[in-house]
Amino acid sequence: MQPIGHVESPLTDRSAAPKQADEGAPDAWLVFAPEYARAMAELAAGQDVLVLTWLDRADRSVLAVHPRSDPNRPETGVFSTRSPDRPNPIGLHRATIVAVDGFRVRVAHLEALDGTPIVDVKPVLGTER
Amino acid sequence: MQPIGHVESPLTDRSAAPKQADEGAPDAWLVFAPEYARAMAELAAGQDVLVLTWLDRADRSVLAVHPRSDPNRPETGVFSTRSPDRPNPIGLHRATIVAVDGFRVRVAHLEALDGTPIVDVKPVLGTER
Repeated sequence: MQPIGHVESPLTDRSAAPKQADEGAPDAWLVFAPEYARAMAELAAGQDVLVLTWLDRADRSVLAVHPRSDPNRPETGVFSTRSPDRPNPIGLHRATIVAVDGFRVRVAHLEALDGTPIVDVKPVLGTER
Repeated sequence: MQPIGHVESPLTDRSAAPKQADEGAPDAWLVFAPEYARAMAELAAGQDVLVLTWLDRADRSVLAVHPRSDPNRPETGVFSTRSPDRPNPIGLHRATIVAVDGFRVRVAHLEALDGTPIVDVKPVLGTER
């Protein structure tokens, strides 16, 4: 897998970062590498997108976690949780584009940390709204 | 990235396969590698999941495509389409689990081809319903 760009965000500390976008995540820039200019050319303000990232600070050896919503619950397999610690730590973030400036796309409420590699961007389908 | 399993499906031909699950995709098995047994232990019938795959038959050099919905429209950057041909061909499939049999999980309406590597499974969040 090849990064297509990276996240620029005020979030730098995993322990302080919100776990989901609706928990107070700040706006952030998606900074595309110039070789992907054609692939991102139709991104525009107002669109809802799915941003796929590679959570490079994750622990890939983790197979089960105590659910964050209730730490007293028993350990749960990571494929039934959104834990960033998992065998292939792909982050999936739904976000709304608020501005485009050259190779930089600003999105509202992204919970990814500063410097996180971006691996794909997809439009939201009707069935996912 | 390390496959966590693979898809078993009657779909073997990319050109004949439906492009989205609601276009007549058949049921399929997610076959997990035994080392991920703990990670998939809480998957159960009735749950809605997001299956992330690696579309290993994709053309990773493609940056723009004619939209399938209207081939007369001009070429569109792949980050604004769901084309499988894209720099990092990660497939994102929403599916409902209909049965679990050991390391095998049966899902309804999956448009992935037989043998496609699975790289992650996540629960659907409330905001994605």
